[in-house]
Amino acid sequence: MRISELSSATGVAVPSIKYYLREGLLPPGELTSANQASYDDTHAQRLRLIRALLDVGGLPIATAKEVLAAIDTQGLPLTWVFGVAQHAISDASLYEPVEGETNGTRAVRDLVAERGWHVSPENPGMHGAARVLDTYRGVGHPELAHIWEGYADAAELIATADLASVARQTDVEAMSETVVVGTILGDALVASLRRMAQEHVSNQQFPAPTKD
Amino acid sequence: MRISELSSATGVAVPSIKYYLREGLLPPGELTSANQASYDDTHAQRLRLIRALLDVGGLPIATAKEVLAAIDTQGLPLTWVFGVAQHAISDASLYEPVEGETNGTRAVRDLVAERGWHVSPENPGMHGAARVLDTYRGVGHPELAHIWEGYADAAELIATADLASVARQTDVEAMSETVVVGTILGDALVASLRRMAQEHVSNQQFPAPTKD
Repeated sequence: MRISELSSATGVAVPSIKYYLREGLLPPGELTSANQASYDDTHAQRLRLIRALLDVGGLPIATAKEVLAAIDTQGLPLTWVFGVAQHAISDASLYEPVEGETNGTRAVRDLVAERGWHVSPENPGMHGAARVLDTYRGVGHPELAHIWEGYADAAELIATADLASVARQTDVEAMSETVVVGTILGDALVASLRRMAQEHVSNQQFPAPTKD
Repeated sequence: MRISELSSATGVAVPSIKYYLREGLLPPGELTSANQASYDDTHAQRLRLIRALLDVGGLPIATAKEVLAAIDTQGLPLTWVFGVAQHAISDASLYEPVEGETNGTRAVRDLVAERGWHVSPENPGMHGAARVLDTYRGVGHPELAHIWEGYADAAELIATADLASVARQTDVEAMSETVVVGTILGDALVASLRRMAQEHVSNQQFPAPTKD
Protein backbone atom coordinates (compact mmCIF):
# COMPACT_ATOMS: atom_id res chain seq x y z
CA MET A 1 0.00 0.00 0.00
CA ARG A 2 1.03 3.63 -0.46
CA ILE A 3 1.88 5.94 2.41
CA SER A 4 -1.58 7.56 2.23
CA GLU A 5 -3.21 4.12 2.55
CA LEU A 6 -0.91 3.23 5.45
CA SER A 7 -2.10 6.46 7.08
CA SER A 8 -5.78 5.53 6.58
CA ALA A 9 -5.22 1.99 7.84
CA THR A 10 -3.59 3.13 11.10
CA GLY A 11 -5.02 6.60 11.73
CA VAL A 12 -1.49 8.04 11.87
CA ALA A 13 -1.03 11.27 9.84
CA VAL A 14 1.33 11.14 6.82
CA PRO A 15 3.76 13.78 8.21
CA SER A 16 4.10 11.69 11.40
CA ILE A 17 4.78 8.54 9.36
CA LYS A 18 7.48 10.42 7.41
CA TYR A 19 8.99 11.61 10.70
CA TYR A 20 9.17 8.03 12.08
CA LEU A 21 10.79 6.90 8.79
CA ARG A 22 13.40 9.69 9.02
CA GLU A 23 14.12 8.91 12.68
CA GLY A 24 14.53 5.21 11.93
CA LEU A 25 11.63 3.99 14.10
CA LEU A 26 9.77 2.66 11.06
CA PRO A 27 11.71 0.59 8.49
CA PRO A 28 11.59 2.00 4.93
CA GLY A 29 9.05 0.64 2.45
CA GLU A 30 9.96 -1.04 -0.82
CA LEU A 31 10.78 1.54 -3.50
CA THR A 32 8.38 1.26 -6.46
CA SER A 33 9.64 4.39 -8.25
CA ALA A 34 12.13 7.19 -7.59
CA ASN A 35 9.88 8.94 -5.07
CA GLN A 36 7.29 6.34 -4.11
CA ALA A 37 7.46 3.38 -1.73
CA SER A 38 5.14 0.51 -0.93
CA TYR A 39 4.25 -0.57 2.60
CA ASP A 40 2.73 -3.77 3.97
CA ASP A 41 0.99 -5.03 7.12
CA THR A 42 4.25 -5.29 9.05
CA HIS A 43 4.56 -1.50 8.66
CA ALA A 44 1.01 -0.95 9.90
CA GLN A 45 1.70 -3.22 12.88
CA ARG A 46 4.94 -1.41 13.69
CA LEU A 47 3.22 1.99 13.42
CA ARG A 48 0.61 0.91 15.99
CA LEU A 49 3.40 -0.23 18.33
CA ILE A 50 5.23 3.10 17.89
CA ARG A 51 2.10 5.05 18.80
CA ALA A 52 1.43 2.83 21.81
CA LEU A 53 4.97 3.39 23.15
CA LEU A 54 4.79 7.16 22.57
CA ASP A 55 1.16 7.91 23.51
CA VAL A 56 0.27 5.34 26.19
CA GLY A 57 3.80 4.55 27.40
CA GLY A 58 4.80 8.22 27.30
CA LEU A 59 8.28 7.41 25.93
CA PRO A 60 10.43 10.04 24.21
CA ILE A 61 11.26 9.28 20.53
CA ALA A 62 14.90 8.37 21.27
CA THR A 63 13.89 5.84 23.94
CA ALA A 64 11.22 4.28 21.70
CA LYS A 65 13.90 3.87 19.03
CA GLU A 66 16.19 1.96 21.42
CA VAL A 67 13.35 -0.27 22.52
CA LEU A 68 12.33 -1.10 18.93
CA ALA A 69 15.95 -1.83 18.03
CA ALA A 70 16.10 -4.33 20.92
CA ILE A 71 12.99 -6.09 19.58
CA ASP A 72 14.46 -6.21 16.05
CA THR A 73 17.93 -7.50 16.94
CA GLN A 74 17.98 -11.21 16.16
CA GLY A 75 19.44 -13.50 18.78
CA LEU A 76 19.56 -10.92 21.57
CA PRO A 77 19.21 -12.78 24.90
CA LEU A 78 15.82 -12.21 26.52
CA THR A 79 17.50 -10.84 29.64
CA TRP A 80 18.93 -8.01 27.50
CA VAL A 81 15.49 -7.19 26.11
CA PHE A 82 14.21 -7.09 29.69
CA GLY A 83 17.04 -4.73 30.60
CA VAL A 84 16.24 -2.34 27.75
CA ALA A 85 12.52 -2.36 28.59
CA GLN A 86 13.26 -1.87 32.30
CA HIS A 87 15.25 1.29 31.62
CA ALA A 88 12.68 2.69 29.20
CA ILE A 89 10.36 5.05 31.03
CA SER A 90 9.07 8.52 30.26
CA ASP A 91 11.09 10.03 33.09
CA ALA A 92 14.47 8.32 32.83
CA SER A 93 16.09 10.61 35.43
CA LEU A 94 14.22 8.62 38.11
CA TYR A 95 16.46 5.63 37.42
CA GLU A 96 19.82 7.38 37.30
CA PRO A 97 22.26 6.06 39.92
CA VAL A 98 21.89 7.60 43.39
CA GLU A 99 25.28 8.99 44.42
CA GLY A 100 26.88 7.70 47.59
CA GLU A 101 25.29 5.94 50.53
CA THR A 102 21.90 7.33 51.61
CA ASN A 103 19.03 6.28 53.85
CA GLY A 104 17.30 5.19 50.65
CA THR A 105 20.11 3.02 49.29
CA ARG A 106 20.50 1.33 52.70
CA ALA A 107 16.74 0.66 52.96
CA VAL A 108 16.70 -0.85 49.46
CA ARG A 109 19.69 -3.09 50.24
CA ASP A 110 18.04 -4.23 53.48
CA LEU A 111 14.79 -5.05 51.68
CA VAL A 112 16.60 -7.09 49.03
CA ALA A 113 18.47 -9.02 51.75
CA GLU A 114 15.36 -9.66 53.90
CA ARG A 115 13.35 -10.92 50.94
CA GLY A 116 16.21 -12.91 49.45
CA TRP A 117 15.71 -11.21 46.09
CA HIS A 118 18.40 -11.89 43.49
CA VAL A 119 18.83 -8.41 42.02
CA SER A 120 21.98 -6.94 40.50
CA PRO A 121 23.21 -3.52 41.70
CA GLU A 122 22.68 -2.23 38.14
CA ASN A 123 18.94 -2.89 38.21
CA PRO A 124 17.32 0.52 37.50
CA GLY A 125 14.67 -0.18 40.14
CA MET A 126 17.34 -0.15 42.87
CA HIS A 127 18.12 3.48 42.06
CA GLY A 128 14.50 4.50 41.49
CA ALA A 129 13.32 3.03 44.80
CA ALA A 130 16.21 4.61 46.75
CA ARG A 131 15.49 7.98 45.10
CA VAL A 132 11.78 7.90 46.03
CA LEU A 133 12.55 6.91 49.64
CA ASP A 134 15.11 9.72 49.94
CA THR A 135 12.56 12.13 48.48
CA TYR A 136 9.91 11.07 51.02
CA ARG A 137 12.38 11.98 53.74
CA GLY A 138 13.49 15.18 51.97
CA VAL A 139 9.95 16.54 51.82
CA GLY A 140 9.33 15.73 55.49
CA HIS A 141 7.28 12.55 55.03
CA PRO A 142 9.60 9.71 56.11
CA GLU A 143 6.52 7.88 57.46
CA LEU A 144 5.64 7.02 53.84
CA ALA A 145 8.69 4.73 53.75
CA HIS A 146 7.01 2.45 56.31
CA ILE A 147 4.36 1.28 53.87
CA TRP A 148 6.64 -0.11 51.27
CA GLU A 149 6.66 -3.66 52.64
CA GLY A 150 3.13 -3.86 51.22
CA TYR A 151 4.42 -2.48 47.93
CA ALA A 152 7.14 -5.16 47.81
CA ASP A 153 4.54 -7.94 48.26
CA ALA A 154 2.58 -6.33 45.41
CA ALA A 155 5.68 -6.11 43.21
CA GLU A 156 6.25 -9.86 43.60
CA LEU A 157 2.68 -10.58 42.46
CA ILE A 158 3.06 -8.25 39.47
CA ALA A 159 6.43 -9.69 38.43
CA THR A 160 5.10 -13.26 38.70
CA ALA A 161 2.21 -12.32 36.40
CA ASP A 162 4.66 -10.58 34.03
CA LEU A 163 6.91 -13.62 33.73
CA ALA A 164 3.91 -15.92 33.22
CA SER A 165 2.87 -13.85 30.18
CA VAL A 166 6.37 -14.13 28.72
CA ALA A 167 6.61 -17.87 29.35
CA ARG A 168 3.31 -18.35 27.50
CA GLN A 169 4.88 -17.12 24.24
CA THR A 170 6.45 -19.66 21.93
CA ASP A 171 8.58 -17.72 19.47
CA VAL A 172 11.39 -15.45 20.59
CA GLU A 173 10.39 -12.36 18.63
CA ALA A 174 6.88 -12.40 20.10
CA MET A 175 8.49 -12.87 23.54
CA SER A 176 10.65 -9.77 23.06
CA GLU A 177 7.63 -7.73 22.05
CA THR A 178 5.63 -9.04 25.03
CA VAL A 179 8.44 -8.06 27.39
CA VAL A 180 8.65 -4.54 25.97
CA VAL A 181 4.92 -3.84 25.69
CA GLY A 182 4.10 -5.50 29.00
CA THR A 183 6.84 -3.76 30.96
CA ILE A 184 6.29 -0.27 29.56
CA LEU A 185 2.49 -0.18 29.35
CA GLY A 186 2.15 -2.34 32.46
CA ASP A 187 3.29 0.55 34.65
CA ALA A 188 0.28 2.55 33.44
CA LEU A 189 -2.03 -0.41 34.08
CA VAL A 190 -0.74 -0.85 37.64
CA ALA A 191 -1.07 2.90 38.32
CA SER A 192 -4.65 2.81 37.00
CA LEU A 193 -5.68 -0.19 39.10
CA ARG A 194 -4.04 1.41 42.14
CA ARG A 195 -6.30 4.46 41.74
CA MET A 196 -9.39 2.25 41.47
CA ALA A 197 -8.39 0.19 44.52
CA GLN A 198 -7.61 3.37 46.49
CA GLU A 199 -11.19 4.54 46.01
CA HIS A 200 -12.55 1.14 46.99
CA VAL A 201 -10.42 0.75 50.14
CA SER A 202 -11.10 4.39 51.07
CA ASN A 203 -14.87 3.75 50.78
CA GLN A 204 -14.52 0.67 52.98
CA GLN A 205 -12.47 2.36 55.69
CA PHE A 206 -14.17 5.76 55.64
CA PRO A 207 -17.72 4.97 54.50
CA ALA A 208 -19.87 7.97 53.60
CA PRO A 209 -22.53 8.67 56.26
CA THR A 210 -25.96 7.22 55.39
CA LYS A 211 -29.37 8.63 56.26
CA ASP A 212 -31.57 6.63 58.65
CA MET B 1 16.30 34.61 55.02
CA ARG B 2 16.95 36.24 51.65
CA ILE B 3 16.28 34.54 48.33
CA SER B 4 20.00 33.72 47.94
CA GLU B 5 19.97 32.00 51.34
CA LEU B 6 16.77 30.14 50.44
CA SER B 7 18.62 28.96 47.34
CA SER B 8 21.63 27.75 49.38
CA ALA B 9 19.38 26.02 51.93
CA THR B 10 17.46 24.04 49.29
CA GLY B 11 19.89 23.72 46.39
CA VAL B 12 17.33 25.30 44.05
CA ALA B 13 18.76 28.02 41.77
CA VAL B 14 17.52 31.60 42.29
CA PRO B 15 16.04 31.92 38.76
CA SER B 16 14.01 28.73 39.39
CA ILE B 17 12.76 30.10 42.73
CA LYS B 18 11.68 33.33 40.96
CA TYR B 19 9.90 31.26 38.32
CA TYR B 20 7.94 29.28 40.95
CA LEU B 21 7.02 32.59 42.67
CA ARG B 22 5.77 34.05 39.36
CA GLU B 23 3.79 30.90 38.55
CA GLY B 24 2.21 30.89 42.00
CA LEU B 25 3.65 27.53 43.13
CA LEU B 26 5.62 29.19 45.95
CA PRO B 27 3.85 31.78 48.15
CA PRO B 28 5.54 35.22 48.18
CA GLY B 29 7.93 36.12 51.00
CA GLU B 30 7.40 39.01 53.41
CA LEU B 31 8.45 42.30 51.82
CA THR B 32 11.29 43.91 53.80
CA SER B 33 11.93 46.74 51.31
CA ALA B 34 10.66 47.80 47.87
CA ASN B 35 12.57 45.07 46.06
CA GLN B 36 13.57 42.58 48.75
CA ALA B 37 11.58 39.87 50.50
CA SER B 38 12.27 37.57 53.42
CA TYR B 39 11.61 33.82 53.38
CA ASP B 40 11.32 31.26 56.17
CA ASP B 41 11.43 27.48 56.69
CA THR B 42 7.92 26.99 55.30
CA HIS B 43 9.24 28.34 51.97
CA ALA B 44 12.19 25.95 52.08
CA GLN B 45 9.86 23.05 52.85
CA ARG B 46 7.49 24.02 50.03
CA LEU B 47 10.41 24.35 47.57
CA ARG B 48 11.53 20.80 48.37
CA LEU B 49 7.99 19.56 47.76
CA ILE B 50 7.81 21.44 44.42
CA ARG B 51 11.06 19.85 43.26
CA ALA B 52 9.91 16.39 44.36
CA LEU B 53 6.68 16.71 42.38
CA LEU B 54 8.46 18.02 39.27
CA ASP B 55 11.66 15.94 39.31
CA VAL B 56 10.68 12.61 40.88
CA GLY B 57 6.93 12.73 40.18
CA GLY B 58 7.50 14.06 36.65
CA LEU B 59 4.54 16.48 36.88
CA PRO B 60 4.20 19.46 34.53
CA ILE B 61 4.21 22.88 36.27
CA ALA B 62 0.46 23.43 35.80
CA THR B 63 -0.40 20.07 37.39
CA ALA B 64 1.96 20.66 40.32
CA LYS B 65 0.20 24.01 40.87
CA GLU B 66 -3.24 22.34 41.08
CA VAL B 67 -1.92 19.72 43.49
CA LEU B 68 -0.33 22.32 45.80
CA ALA B 69 -3.53 24.40 45.73
CA ALA B 70 -5.46 21.31 46.90
CA ILE B 71 -3.05 20.87 49.82
CA ASP B 72 -3.37 24.55 50.77
CA THR B 73 -7.16 24.83 50.63
CA GLN B 74 -8.44 24.69 54.18
CA GLY B 75 -11.37 22.41 54.87
CA LEU B 76 -11.24 20.56 51.54
CA PRO B 77 -12.61 17.03 52.12
CA LEU B 78 -9.90 14.39 52.00
CA THR B 79 -11.71 12.58 49.17
CA TRP B 80 -11.23 15.70 47.02
CA VAL B 81 -7.51 15.77 47.76
CA PHE B 82 -7.39 12.10 46.76
CA GLY B 83 -9.21 12.96 43.54
CA VAL B 84 -6.75 15.73 42.64
CA ALA B 85 -3.75 13.51 43.42
CA GLN B 86 -5.27 10.62 41.47
CA HIS B 87 -5.58 12.74 38.33
CA ALA B 88 -2.10 14.22 38.68
CA ILE B 89 0.34 12.23 36.57
CA SER B 90 3.06 13.20 34.12
CA ASP B 91 1.08 11.85 31.18
CA ALA B 92 -2.48 13.02 31.83
CA SER B 93 -3.73 11.84 28.41
CA LEU B 94 -3.62 8.27 29.75
CA TYR B 95 -6.57 9.05 32.02
CA GLU B 96 -8.79 10.89 29.54
CA PRO B 97 -12.17 9.21 29.10
CA VAL B 98 -12.21 6.34 26.59
CA GLU B 99 -14.92 7.06 24.03
CA GLY B 100 -17.74 4.59 23.60
CA GLU B 101 -17.86 0.91 24.58
CA THR B 102 -14.66 -1.05 23.90
CA ASN B 103 -13.17 -4.39 24.86
CA GLY B 104 -11.20 -2.49 27.46
CA THR B 105 -14.13 -0.67 29.08
CA ARG B 106 -16.07 -3.97 29.25
CA ALA B 107 -13.14 -5.80 30.82
CA VAL B 108 -12.69 -3.07 33.43
CA ARG B 109 -16.40 -3.10 34.29
CA ASP B 110 -16.32 -6.90 34.63
CA LEU B 111 -13.30 -6.77 36.93
CA VAL B 112 -14.94 -4.18 39.18
CA ALA B 113 -18.10 -6.32 39.39
CA GLU B 114 -16.23 -9.57 40.08
CA ARG B 115 -14.14 -8.03 42.83
CA GLY B 116 -17.00 -6.06 44.34
CA TRP B 117 -14.94 -2.88 44.14
CA HIS B 118 -16.82 0.34 44.91
CA VAL B 119 -15.43 2.62 42.21
CA SER B 120 -17.18 5.57 40.55
CA PRO B 121 -17.25 5.76 36.73
CA GLU B 122 -15.28 9.05 37.00
CA ASN B 123 -12.28 7.36 38.65
CA PRO B 124 -9.33 8.14 36.32
CA GLY B 125 -8.04 4.59 36.74
CA MET B 126 -11.14 3.21 34.97
CA HIS B 127 -10.15 5.09 31.80
CA GLY B 128 -6.43 4.41 32.15
CA ALA B 129 -6.92 0.65 32.60
CA ALA B 130 -9.36 0.43 29.66
CA ARG B 131 -6.95 2.39 27.46
CA VAL B 132 -4.00 0.10 28.26
CA LEU B 133 -6.08 -3.06 27.64
CA ASP B 134 -7.31 -1.65 24.30
CA THR B 135 -3.73 -0.79 23.40
CA TYR B 136 -2.52 -4.35 24.19
CA ARG B 137 -5.12 -5.58 21.72
CA GLY B 138 -4.33 -2.83 19.19
CA VAL B 139 -0.65 -3.78 19.03
CA GLY B 140 -1.47 -7.48 18.62
CA HIS B 141 -0.79 -8.61 22.20
CA PRO B 142 -4.24 -9.31 23.67
CA GLU B 143 -2.64 -12.15 25.69
CA LEU B 144 -1.18 -9.49 27.99
CA ALA B 145 -4.71 -8.73 29.20
CA HIS B 146 -4.85 -12.20 30.80
CA ILE B 147 -2.32 -11.32 33.45
CA TRP B 148 -4.13 -8.43 34.97
CA GLU B 149 -5.91 -10.48 37.64
CA GLY B 150 -2.51 -10.65 39.34
CA TYR B 151 -2.17 -6.89 38.92
CA ALA B 152 -5.56 -6.34 40.57
CA ASP B 153 -4.50 -8.41 43.61
CA ALA B 154 -1.36 -6.28 43.77
CA ALA B 155 -3.36 -3.04 43.48
CA GLU B 156 -5.45 -4.05 46.52
CA LEU B 157 -2.27 -4.60 48.57
CA ILE B 158 -0.85 -1.25 47.48
CA ALA B 159 -4.06 0.68 48.17
CA THR B 160 -4.37 -0.93 51.62
CA ALA B 161 -0.81 0.21 52.43
CA ASP B 162 -1.61 3.67 51.03
CA LEU B 163 -4.67 4.13 53.21
CA ALA B 164 -2.80 2.88 56.29
CA SER B 165 -0.22 5.65 55.84
CA VAL B 166 -2.99 8.26 55.61
CA ALA B 167 -4.84 6.94 58.68
CA ARG B 168 -1.60 7.18 60.67
CA GLN B 169 -1.58 10.99 60.30
CA THR B 170 -3.31 13.08 62.94
CA ASP B 171 -3.70 16.57 61.47
CA VAL B 172 -5.59 17.18 58.27
CA GLU B 173 -2.94 19.23 56.45
CA ALA B 174 -0.31 16.54 56.97
CA MET B 175 -2.89 14.00 55.74
CA SER B 176 -3.42 15.99 52.52
CA GLU B 177 0.30 16.16 51.90
CA THR B 178 0.70 12.44 52.59
CA VAL B 179 -2.06 11.65 50.08
CA VAL B 180 -0.46 13.82 47.39
CA VAL B 181 3.16 12.78 47.92
CA GLY B 182 2.29 9.12 48.47
CA THR B 183 0.01 8.85 45.43
CA ILE B 184 2.26 10.70 42.97
CA LEU B 185 5.69 9.42 44.05
CA GLY B 186 4.25 6.01 44.97
CA ASP B 187 3.77 5.19 41.28
CA ALA B 188 7.52 5.55 40.79
CA LEU B 189 8.21 3.39 43.84
CA VAL B 190 5.91 0.62 42.60
CA ALA B 191 7.46 0.77 39.11
CA SER B 192 10.94 0.51 40.68
CA LEU B 193 10.07 -2.46 42.90
CA ARG B 194 8.40 -4.15 39.92
CA ARG B 195 11.70 -3.96 37.98
CA MET B 196 13.60 -5.45 40.92
CA ALA B 197 11.06 -8.24 41.38
CA GLN B 198 11.07 -8.96 37.63
CA GLU B 199 14.79 -9.67 37.76
CA HIS B 200 14.38 -11.86 40.84
CA VAL B 201 11.48 -13.92 39.45
CA SER B 202 13.23 -14.17 36.08
CA ASN B 203 16.36 -15.53 37.81
CA GLN B 204 14.24 -18.06 39.69
CA GLN B 205 12.34 -19.28 36.64
CA PHE B 206 15.17 -19.10 34.11
CA PRO B 207 18.31 -19.69 36.21
CA ALA B 208 21.61 -19.06 34.48
CA PRO B 209 23.48 -22.30 33.73
CA THR B 210 26.17 -23.15 36.29
CA LYS B 211 29.46 -24.94 35.66
CA ASP B 212 30.01 -28.32 37.30
